[in-house]
Formats: sequence, C-alpha cells, structure tokens
Amino acid sequence: MRQNGKISSEKQETFLPKLICASSDESADILYASGFHAPDEFLYFETEQRRGIVVSPLEYSRACAEAKEGVEVIDRSALMRECGTDRPFLPFFSRRLGVPRWCVPERFPLKTAIELSDAGIEVICVKAPFFPARECKTREEIAAIAKSVRATEEMMRLLHAMLAESKVNAQGCLELAGRVVTCERLRAEIEGNFKRMGYTASRTIIACGVQSAAPHNIGSGPVRAGEVLVADIFPRSDATGYWGDMTRTFLKGRAPKHVLRAYRAVRKASETALGMIRAGVAASEVHIAAAKTMEELGFRTGRKRGGMPCGFIHGLGHGVGLEIHEGPRVSPLNTRPLRRGNVVSVEPGLYDPDWGGIRLEDLVAVTGTGCRNFNTMEKELEIP
Amino acid sequence: MRQNGKISSEKQETFLPKLICASSDESADILYASGFHAPDEFLYFETEQRRGIVVSPLEYSRACAEAKEGVEVIDRSALMRECGTDRPFLPFFSRRLGVPRWCVPERFPLKTAIELSDAGIEVICVKAPFFPARECKTREEIAAIAKSVRATEEMMRLLHAMLAESKVNAQGCLELAGRVVTCERLRAEIEGNFKRMGYTASRTIIACGVQSAAPHNIGSGPVRAGEVLVADIFPRSDATGYWGDMTRTFLKGRAPKHVLRAYRAVRKASETALGMIRAGVAASEVHIAAAKTMEELGFRTGRKRGGMPCGFIHGLGHGVGLEIHEGPRVSPLNTRPLRRGNVVSVEPGLYDPDWGGIRLEDLVAVTGTGCRNFNTMEKELEIP
Repeated sequence: MRQNGKISSEKQETFLPKLICASSDESADILYASGFHAPDEFLYFETEQRRGIVVSPLEYSRACAEAKEGVEVIDRSALMRECGTDRPFLPFFSRRLGVPRWCVPERFPLKTAIELSDAGIEVICVKAPFFPARECKTREEIAAIAKSVRATEEMMRLLHAMLAESKVNAQGCLELAGRVVTCERLRAEIEGNFKRMGYTASRTIIACGVQSAAPHNIGSGPVRAGEVLVADIFPRSDATGYWGDMTRTFLKGRAPKHVLRAYRAVRKASETALGMIRAGVAASEVHIAAAKTMEELGFRTGRKRGGMPCGFIHGLGHGVGLEIHEGPRVSPLNTRPLRRGNVVSVEPGLYDPDWGGIRLEDLVAVTGTGCRNFNTMEKELEIP
Repeated sequence: MRQNGKISSEKQETFLPKLICASSDESADILYASGFHAPDEFLYFETEQRRGIVVSPLEYSRACAEAKEGVEVIDRSALMRECGTDRPFLPFFSRRLGVPRWCVPERFPLKTAIELSDAGIEVICVKAPFFPARECKTREEIAAIAKSVRATEEMMRLLHAMLAESKVNAQGCLELAGRVVTCERLRAEIEGNFKRMGYTASRTIIACGVQSAAPHNIGSGPVRAGEVLVADIFPRSDATGYWGDMTRTFLKGRAPKHVLRAYRAVRKASETALGMIRAGVAASEVHIAAAKTMEELGFRTGRKRGGMPCGFIHGLGHGVGLEIHEGPRVSPLNTRPLRRGNVVSVEPGLYDPDWGGIRLEDLVAVTGTGCRNFNTMEKELEIP
C-alpha cells in the first residue's frame, strides 16, 4: 500500500529542505532566494547540499545569467523527459535529491502539495516569514531601497511643482497648461515618468477632498483648491525589485483651520515616531506613541455617522523591501522589538469623512541608535 | 475526537461551493468572479444561494462601489470580531454559510487549506480551469480586449516611426535626436506612454540581433542596422484588467537573404494558421499546420551546436484575457477543439542562435466561421 505523505503546518526546528513554487511576481521569497525575475511559475529548492531553480527551457539561458551565485539552474524539460511527461515530475525530482519532506511557504499551491503528498513526500507548511532574514536588510538591499526612495522623491517634487504652477479657475479647480488638473492626469504623469526611469508604479494614490478619507481610494476627477490632496507614491525598481514608498499631503491655497490642526497633529506624530525608532524598541510602542500624540492634540479614533471610520484608522507602518507590505508591521499587534536593518514606513494619518485625510509617510532603516530616514523632502501642507 | 476534513483533488460533478483566497494581481479568477481589483489578498465565495467577497475594512467602501452586480461585500473585521481574533475566521465563516466542503483552485494557499481541513471542512482542489467559462469571452470582454489591442498597435506604430526616423551612424548603430537608440530607451518610451494611456506594460521585449534567438530575452544595448529587432508588446489595461499582446519583427536597412527567407516563412505560417482557425478545429491542428508550413519552406526545429534550440521552439499561441497566458493553449498538446469566443494569440516564430529570431503575433477571437483578427498592422520586415 502506498503511504501518503503528511500535510501539516508545524514549526521547523532543525534544518529542513525548502521548496517554493511560484513566479517572482507572486513570491518575493523566490526572488530573494534565487535572484531570478520571471513572470511564469518556476521552482526553488534548498537542501543541506544544494540550492537551485528549475525553469522552463525558454528561460534557461537567462536564468543562468541572472541567478544568484551558488544557485544551480536546471532545465525543466530535461527533468520531465527523464521522469515521463504523463506524471508530475516534482515527486521524481524530490526522490532524486533524496528529500523525504519539504518545508513550503504559507501560499504554496495546494495542487502541488497534494501531488507531493500523494507520492509519499511530506509537506510542512511553515508559518511566515519563510526567510526571516528578509526582515533585516543587508547593506546592498538598503542601497537598493534608498535608490527607489530617491526616485520616489523626484516624482513627489514633480507633483509639488505641477501643483505650484497650476492656476485656480473660476470654479475653484486647478488648471495647468490650459487644462483642468485631474487626479488621473497627475497619476498618469507620475507613472509615465517612472517607467522612463526604470520603475513600475500602479494604483498611485492621488486622492483629493473627501476621497482621501478612505486610505485606499486612489482618487479621481478634478483637483480643487482649498481641499486636501493625498499623494501616496510607491514604485518598484524593474532592475532590483525593491520598492520605494512615500506619502505627502498637499493643499493648493489656504487651508481651513481644522485641516491645518489635523496636519500639524500628524506631523507631530511622525516626529514622535521617528524620534523613538531604534533597534530594541517594540514596534507596538512606536504605534501607540504616535496614536497618543494625535489623541492628546484632540484627535480621537472611532466611527462617525453611518459607521464611517474616523481618526487614525490604520497601523503606523509596515516593512518594505521586495514586497511593498512585508514584516515587520508597526502596529499595536506586533509587540516584537524592531531590529537593526529593518526597513519600515512611518505613516501616521488622520481621516475624517467630512473633509478627507492627512497622511505623511517616510521610509526609514532601523539602526542600533535610531534610524536612517531615506526621505529628505519637507512636510508642508499649503502650496501657494 | 475532532474529525479532520479531507484534502483531495477530484473532479467536481454536481454544484459545489467555490472559494478563492488571493489578490486580484495573483488570481485572474478572483477578478473575473468578483469584478474587484485589489492588491491585497481577499476572499471570494460562491454557494448555491450566495456569492460574495470578504475584504479588509480599508477596502470595504471601494469594494461596494466596484464589485460586480450580485456580489455581496462583507467587512472582514466585522466577521473577525464575531469569530474571535485569535483563531482563523474561515472555518467559522464556512459553518455560518452552512458549507461542509469547498472547491478551491490549484493555487489555493496551502496554509488556508490546512486551517479548513483541521476544522473538519473538506477542501477539494479543482483541476484548472477553475471557471471554464473564462475561456469563452463575452461581447464585453471582447470589446475590452479589442481596446487593449488598439493601444498596443498604437505603440507598435510609434516604435516603427522611431526606427524609421533613426539614422545609422558610422558604427552601424541607430541614432535618434542625436543619441544612440538602445533597447532600453525604446522600451522606456513605449512603457512610459502606456502608463499615460492607462495601461501597464513591463518586460516589453525589444530584443535585437542574436538576443532575439531566446524568445524571453527582453533585450539590451544599442540597436544595429541590418539586424533583426523583435518587439513583443503586451500591456494590461489598468481599468479593465484585460491584456493586449502583439509581436512584430523589424530590421533597419536591407535584410540579409537568410533572414528574409525566415521572415517570409513565418509570415506564411501566420497566414496558414489565421486561415484555418474557426470553432471546432483542434488547437493542435493549427499549431501543426503552422509548423509544417515552415518546415516545408526549409526550417526544421532542433538543436544547434552547444544544444541551443533552433527553429519553431514554442507553441503557436495561447489564450489571452485577464491573464496574459491562459487557456486555450494552441500547441501540439492541446487536442481540444477551439470554441467560439476563445481569444488566442497566433505567433509563429523561427529562432537561430547565429542571427536571432523572427516572431509575428496577432490576437484573434474565434468565431463560428473563422476568426476576427484584432490586429490591423501590416507585417513588413524592412524599415528604410
């Protein structure tokens, strides 16, 4: 009788072979481990003796040129020929490697797990993060992120310049070069320029007025003077895969008093958080301190009429690297201490369905004594 | 004793509830079923009575506005509060829906499958396609794809114009506006313009000379006169999620005889394939006919020195829709008949490590009597 392999989720104790099956668009882990960018699914394996990837014959020569040092490249078609094309080759390949059990990530495809298990190979689903080392960036990774942030700031300054050059028309809308300025036009300008610089940005948030009260609303329609405009820009480098992430809030003309008060509270929360980040401080403490700063300035978090959330309605920050959202989270739920090399966003915000939102986001690397802020751009609300 | 739910892969016979757990970037199925674009993971469920999505509170209002008619939107945080945040809410939610077993797609995350199974809920991994209807496009889907192809052709014509306007310098390289024309520059120009038009294109293939012998080499460095340039352009509409996909091969100046012969063979294969596509014809037959056309013109498929693949080294085409590569494949392995509403690429090619590749790709919709070619651009190699 064939003995089926167990499928389970448990903690790994000693070294266990690792397996990932994904495209590098889906899985930052496979990109991190292999160094190979590919839009189609491929395989990464790691045993005590060997590390490698199994790729389609169409990708073979490119993979040889691009994969990290120490990563073998194997042509899938050759393996499949040896295994026989009518059955899954992964159990065959596992046996050849002498692997009776694989550790796989949380998002490992169920079908492949069943194929392995049916062939008597154990599959252990490892609790994220799959590569805990990814949360602490190396010098090279920090350099790549710093570069992505520089590109992000360049586009944020371009946006600022476009808003500064705009005139306000009789309807209170912004106009530039004789055309009304819309969120769509600003987004297209920014994303188009990014492509020319070797970055891909999508769903860039350029939200104005009440739209910006929903942090994920990307924004649409004309930009009006006297209303907030939240710009959250997060491009990914086509070359390195590392993201930038930055938010500023602007307002053309003079801001109403209640908006200015909220802006100052958010900026103060940002300063509080940036001032206390260093290796050893619990991530949750930083969030709580930022929240408290805004509360003490009169901004409570809760719900308004119709149940709309209001106040500081999201976590203070998140890790950024090969994923735009990765560990460590900076939220009340993550009580673990920050570590040297963590790269996290610091993005306090205040939201009110009556007029919109304010968010200010910098990206920092945690050091032993504080943090290195990748951002240099000032935080000023009003644009004359 | 707790009875664990079975995890298995079997064919579905009668109606069974469906479950997907993915972001719309990872899963075209969840986008297809829900109509909701979201970069972060959410949940889609379908029972005999109900269809809906479960989204984060940050996405709730946007999801209500954007989800397809008939798709309920549920706030995950509300569910989690009821369930208790310390345990997975999906088993709780399944029980509330009265669902003892879910059908899930091949790439369903293993961790979630284990959570369900551990709670006694059966998980059945369905062989792809998860929604077979996706392979036959509706009138609205065809209109969306036609629009993406129009945008693609616009950029292909821009590329053609840039090559036409270029001068050849003393080193045999192309120059435009006083600067050497590189693959990177052409790619950046195309991808930047796409962003302004509301499309996202990445890894656009602009490969010249021997680079183009590897179909997935995206190309780099200066463009030289007298060498082939393969341009494979595939943008995705930010608004609809539907892709365009198109390839042309150009050569600045006069083409060597062997290249011209190969070009004509590929064009002939394209005509052969386009002439026989209609509902009812086996996909494999179309591939085989195209391959035979090129073989009869003297182009055999095999390997050259060093094992480099040579000739017609890939399938003739693939389905295009919410995924750039989806069913039905047009390859020798897919003997199923094409069906009305299939949208497939027709992309014969010839590759030779000695000088590069030729590929010509149109996108067509299969009809009862033939096919509708979305492309209108001529197929001419030489650019004076």
